[in-house]
Amino acid sequence: MTLLVCSSCRREGDGPEVPRPGSRLADAVGAAAGCGVAVRRVACLGNCSRGLSAAVYRPGCWTYVFGGLDEASGGDLLAGARLFAGSSDGFMPWRGRPEALKRGLIARVPPIELLKDLP
Amino acid sequence: MTLLVCSSCRREGDGPEVPRPGSRLADAVGAAAGCGVAVRRVACLGNCSRGLSAAVYRPGCWTYVFGGLDEASGGDLLAGARLFAGSSDGFMPWRGRPEALKRGLIARVPPIELLKDLP
Repeated sequence: MTLLVCSSCRREGDGPEVPRPGSRLADAVGAAAGCGVAVRRVACLGNCSRGLSAAVYRPGCWTYVFGGLDEASGGDLLAGARLFAGSSDGFMPWRGRPEALKRGLIARVPPIELLKDLP
Repeated sequence: MTLLVCSSCRREGDGPEVPRPGSRLADAVGAAAGCGVAVRRVACLGNCSRGLSAAVYRPGCWTYVFGGLDEASGGDLLAGARLFAGSSDGFMPWRGRPEALKRGLIARVPPIELLKDLP
């Protein structure tokens, strides 16, 4: 399970010397993540106008992109990752998902190996 | 290269008997796709409020999700797929990308095998 945090979004008006909110979120999630969850940073998830953004990966499962996060969203991301880890159908369950990961859903995409089975 | 079209979005007010716009877009893209581009359908890409939606996959490359499409967007999706096929860095080039795939970018996510190389 990997949480991929977009570390490059900046807040409007912030100068280049100000640590970026996405980077601070990545730091916070990285510090709180337990075993079984890796945290990685990426320069851009292309969801710039709806940031902060993060994606959740689980091998063989759908990948989820969330937006509208803030620097305090680390707990919600980790709760979502743990919920996802317990699913058996390749999806992150809706029931029990933190509210921020319900209203903040941006997109979900199936794993590439599933494409051949789709109509 | 695979174009994955969300075939389930319906237009507000349409009854269940009306063919869904996403389904019609999938039909149109499927009819126009040449060799090297597979077209698949999926029930939901989770981008419901910003549909119509489609994703573009190329093995080993980033996956792109686009929204704000319409039933006539098949040509733009195919042009984007061909542009992507010619790139050598894993990204869909911005330059030359159809306008609908610039303003309609919803998110992009790296291939899962890239995660281990990220900080």
